Amino acid sequence: MILNDGFLHPDRLLPTEPGLRRIARDLYEHIRALPILSPHGHTEPMWFATDAPFTGAANLLVTPDHYLLRMLRSQGVNYDALGVPRLDGGPVAGPRDAWKTFAAHYHLFAGTPSALWIDHAMGSVLGCSERLTPDTADALFDHITDRLCRPEFRPRALLERFGVEVIATTDSALDDLRHHAALVGTTWEQRVVPTYRPDALTDPEASGFSAGITQLAKLTNCDTAHWPEMIEAHRRCRAVFRALGATATDHGTPSAATADLPPDKCQRLLTGALAGQLTPAEAEQFRAQMLTEMAGLSVEDGMVMQLHAGPRRNTDRAMLALRGPNMGADIPQRTEWSAALEPLLNRYGQNPNLRLILFTLDEGAYARELAPMAGYWPCLMLGPPWWFHDSPGGMRRYLEQVHETAGFANLAGFNDDTRALLSIPARHDVWRRAVAGFLAGLVADHRLDQTDAASIAADLSYGAAKRAYRL
Amino acid sequence: MILNDGFLHPDRLLPTEPGLRRIARDLYEHIRALPILSPHGHTEPMWFATDAPFTGAANLLVTPDHYLLRMLRSQGVNYDALGVPRLDGGPVAGPRDAWKTFAAHYHLFAGTPSALWIDHAMGSVLGCSERLTPDTADALFDHITDRLCRPEFRPRALLERFGVEVIATTDSALDDLRHHAALVGTTWEQRVVPTYRPDALTDPEASGFSAGITQLAKLTNCDTAHWPEMIEAHRRCRAVFRALGATATDHGTPSAATADLPPDKCQRLLTGALAGQLTPAEAEQFRAQMLTEMAGLSVEDGMVMQLHAGPRRNTDRAMLALRGPNMGADIPQRTEWSAALEPLLNRYGQNPNLRLILFTLDEGAYARELAPMAGYWPCLMLGPPWWFHDSPGGMRRYLEQVHETAGFANLAGFNDDTRALLSIPARHDVWRRAVAGFLAGLVADHRLDQTDAASIAADLSYGAAKRAYRL
Amino acid sequence: MILNDGFLHPDRLLPTEPGLRRIARDLYEHIRALPILSPHGHTEPMWFATDAPFTGAANLLVTPDHYLLRMLRSQGVNYDALGVPRLDGGPVAGPRDAWKTFAAHYHLFAGTPSALWIDHAMGSVLGCSERLTPDTADALFDHITDRLCRPEFRPRALLERFGVEVIATTDSALDDLRHHAALVGTTWEQRVVPTYRPDALTDPEASGFSAGITQLAKLTNCDTAHWPEMIEAHRRCRAVFRALGATATDHGTPSAATADLPPDKCQRLLTGALAGQLTPAEAEQFRAQMLTEMAGLSVEDGMVMQLHAGPRRNTDRAMLALRGPNMGADIPQRTEWSAALEPLLNRYGQNPNLRLILFTLDEGAYARELAPMAGYWPCLMLGPPWWFHDSPGGMRRYLEQVHETAGFANLAGFNDDTRALLSIPARHDVWRRAVAGFLAGLVADHRLDQTDAASIAADLSYGAAKRAYRL
Repeated sequence: MILNDGFLHPDRLLPTEPGLRRIARDLYEHIRALPILSPHGHTEPMWFATDAPFTGAANLLVTPDHYLLRMLRSQGVNYDALGVPRLDGGPVAGPRDAWKTFAAHYHLFAGTPSALWIDHAMGSVLGCSERLTPDTADALFDHITDRLCRPEFRPRALLERFGVEVIATTDSALDDLRHHAALVGTTWEQRVVPTYRPDALTDPEASGFSAGITQLAKLTNCDTAHWPEMIEAHRRCRAVFRALGATATDHGTPSAATADLPPDKCQRLLTGALAGQLTPAEAEQFRAQMLTEMAGLSVEDGMVMQLHAGPRRNTDRAMLALRGPNMGADIPQRTEWSAALEPLLNRYGQNPNLRLILFTLDEGAYARELAPMAGYWPCLMLGPPWWFHDSPGGMRRYLEQVHETAGFANLAGFNDDTRALLSIPARHDVWRRAVAGFLAGLVADHRLDQTDAASIAADLSYGAAKRAYRL
Repeated sequence: MILNDGFLHPDRLLPTEPGLRRIARDLYEHIRALPILSPHGHTEPMWFATDAPFTGAANLLVTPDHYLLRMLRSQGVNYDALGVPRLDGGPVAGPRDAWKTFAAHYHLFAGTPSALWIDHAMGSVLGCSERLTPDTADALFDHITDRLCRPEFRPRALLERFGVEVIATTDSALDDLRHHAALVGTTWEQRVVPTYRPDALTDPEASGFSAGITQLAKLTNCDTAHWPEMIEAHRRCRAVFRALGATATDHGTPSAATADLPPDKCQRLLTGALAGQLTPAEAEQFRAQMLTEMAGLSVEDGMVMQLHAGPRRNTDRAMLALRGPNMGADIPQRTEWSAALEPLLNRYGQNPNLRLILFTLDEGAYARELAPMAGYWPCLMLGPPWWFHDSPGGMRRYLEQVHETAGFANLAGFNDDTRALLSIPARHDVWRRAVAGFLAGLVADHRLDQTDAASIAADLSYGAAKRAYRL
Repeated sequence: MILNDGFLHPDRLLPTEPGLRRIARDLYEHIRALPILSPHGHTEPMWFATDAPFTGAANLLVTPDHYLLRMLRSQGVNYDALGVPRLDGGPVAGPRDAWKTFAAHYHLFAGTPSALWIDHAMGSVLGCSERLTPDTADALFDHITDRLCRPEFRPRALLERFGVEVIATTDSALDDLRHHAALVGTTWEQRVVPTYRPDALTDPEASGFSAGITQLAKLTNCDTAHWPEMIEAHRRCRAVFRALGATATDHGTPSAATADLPPDKCQRLLTGALAGQLTPAEAEQFRAQMLTEMAGLSVEDGMVMQLHAGPRRNTDRAMLALRGPNMGADIPQRTEWSAALEPLLNRYGQNPNLRLILFTLDEGAYARELAPMAGYWPCLMLGPPWWFHDSPGGMRRYLEQVHETAGFANLAGFNDDTRALLSIPARHDVWRRAVAGFLAGLVADHRLDQTDAASIAADLSYGAAKRAYRL
């Protein structure tokens, strides 16, 4: 992961007190060039299967990035002007105009993680020699277009250059995984791996739930209208994912509720769900029971279970109708963990095969619930700060609030969780700098010696993710 | 706002690491003397209309300040001894005795924002040459009394001296605004402006709700027993406020709940409210619907809407019975924002005329809900840290937790929100120092360059408030 | 409390910026040797009554310490291997093997408070010259065994060496206090004091509730099936505790709910509770009413009331069945305070005899509810950071979030709250260092002068606890 830092300051994000900075620099030097493990993310497997060149600065960096879109919108920039497609097929700006609109508002990102990622992608990955401004927008657009046509900027070459050892995509449980299959026999076999994401089949309130369950039946030859066979269908699909290298499943839910219901109750929920007749409370029960079922399958097949609980999805209904989901209108909400996970943990939490990695958007749960839970249950690990908290401040708050009670060994290292391929090295670099700075503080006040700190830093940057995800 | 700092240290509240302090000092020098915009506060319009001298140290600085009263009470000082009037007309201490009681306990405020404000008011505004102690109490009382009789300590002169460009008061929707009207033709016309605060008419659980709605009918010639005419009555009252310079409305609610109900349901709520027959849940619905109605009126007339949600009012019933409200017994509670605001935002959130500034007492919502919401919805801005969080620590936590996700451009600058006129320069000064110190950290770790930091500092101290409140 | 620091760094936990560290060192020197007040804890009174030697390193330091056990378990160490007894009488590891297992995993505690306490106990109290590692485990086990046989390591000698002025144990309301009685006539009379903990009698969901109420009847000659006599029985038991030096009661509840119910409702709850027929909501009402009753008794007898609200107990049912409670599976949950305490405070909060000290595991309540409440109600004080938050980070967050709104005078100083006798000086030392570091920050940015800071530091380390607990 050693890249030219371009216009980026080599000490960025490190502590400012000179004594601390010296310690942090040493720790950072020790870890900066470690390989990247990216066990949770949202890049497109097609990129790596086809290895086709990317098509331009705006398409790659701006239009698909909901972190950028939302902030621009909050200051009055219409998504049309950023080239974001409309479901009604209406006209939107072309790539160069979208790029110039972005450049005209890039000052809005001052001090935000998006600026760190964009500056890093441009300065360090794309070889831009200056920051994006309205004045440099045109030239940089051309520069980037030129670079993206070169062989060393194709998707697989970028993974090599970034030092990516393994990268996981996130894939619908119903996906045929053709792009992952296409990698068999290449050097990326078992290194670009899928992740089993069955949300569309576990949430009766998801659009197309019933059709999905029917499709699941066809794929697996199971009668998915019956609960045990519906679970068996998941068992079979998971095996397909595992064969292509998957080591993990991922579950996104509005709350962390789990349940451990008797079979007849499960069947009644399934029948109601297929008929579209569940109340919101019953839908919650369905999702809750499915989490426990998934834990049971993980006990069987060893797949690492990830739970991302908390977001309230699509809070802007007009936006959803006009452009679909993932447009920046997902808003976190309070998340309760200790009572919520009790049914699952009491059912499967003692089993050494289970690993469950927890992600929250509610930082109040770090010290109150998540660190105490991870510091007790062998199956639990804490995922890194997620989404809005994937930031220097979010990382510092996370480390401060979890390390004393969970220890470092119950942390799952770092995930970049991104669909923005070019931001991967930036995101890992921000984490490594944050880790180095945080541990430097513990060294400086004599809570850790430098050797232990170096070993923890390396673990949090590489070893922990390898262990956590059974890579 | 350049005042003599008296016994105050010039570097107070700035970061202590020498490198950081140098950067912070430069930023602070750049903004310290900017004019003051005070777009939300609770000073008395009568002060500015009559420009009569204040009547003494205790009456001005102690007896009306619930920040001081509560802390003294918590350590066993009876409000009688502080001169706080009783509703039963019972005797209370005179001003000099109240002042001496305050002085005897002033050490309780060590390290609190109240001490910052009092020290600043005494040292910098009132020209006291030493801190308040039991030994200096008498002399300082006399000194202050003497100063307050001088012309340069009259209310309007103080505003000039403080560099106040615009100051908003907060006024009942039923207020006749006679004091604001009295300023027409003076240099303070359109500079001491009212704010439309209709809480007594939007909360069916407020004492005197029914009588208020009747009075609203008389004022506006509307039949306020019918929902659309009740809304029309607000429309008319708001126009009166606007004519006297108001640019904003203010809404204080126990929760942030909003609603978007059909007309017949609204009418039933109004009829029930006037009959005093709503359940607590229905009263909450009434308040929730009224917030959405107010947003609709803001879309029409362009008034900026402020929402202060969270406090549990008058938790000490004996105190309320003996001395009335605002005696320090209002206690914040948890506040949920993302689901609560959805009805209002889905109804009016796309309209470019709407501006809604949010204030919370629940800091857990900053990073979890408020920053993500403000970083998406064009209509939303985040108000500065409010009430108990109007403090150096509260400001640091606010800036840390919102800037990465909301950016700086979605912040509404600073409000002093005070009824203590003499604390206005102190409060703005604390904010400016906090902003300078915070931004210095981002400069020192290379997230911002000094030029951008200076421009953001100035915006947060002046420009943002001007823009946010459409001044 | 001046002990040899062994291999511990003298500046540990102090701020790292050189200017701050100088100020912090001065403050720390001023308070480090102050006597220890331990007004809330869980040591065994039998230790002090019999003054028998402790039986070894593992039995003293590892096997009873749920902070250590949980972390080891989270990384796959079975409690059998740590010598933790099983209720089924199954075999578990002997002390030396348990100690070696602990040593083999001691690196897991890097950066945690447990490491601070263990290092301090070994380096400073037990005279170990090196840290615990797998290589030193055997020799240190022998070293500690040898030391524990010496007279200067007997329980009373340790209290003297630690500088403990008063230490409170926590005792069931039904306890006969024979060990406290045995201290009458020794130098420890009225210095090793009991605390009245009636949870088993106030929680109808506690196992053995009904039997406990029957036993209470026998002890006190009250007909405890009738509410007023049940309260009278508590009154009598409390008097017994007071006679042996108790100044405080302690109450542990899942929530902070209080109630002020009419007599007939109370009686119905009691009758239902004794019949085992309460719903969960009624059980909550019973506990809520009992808190208010206990406040009433405190008004009468002057005992200081402590409320520890928040933990969800025994979340691992298999562990509870195998080894009983206090095995690390108690997990905090969100705690609401402002509405919850209103009934109690409105009933008794005005009474100068009442003192109620609040402890939370939900740090979100510090700035939002607890500091505003403590800064208003004369009866309320805030207990120090509790349990998982008894840590350098927990202390910093606590001080930061409470001091501006509650002031320092409404804080109850420090409690070590421990069953680990040897960790007592370590825990007080961590607090004193945290206080010194925190106050140094206020001195360095000119919010406090050094003299006031020294006085506040001494108060938070000693005086505040003496005053808070009426010692």
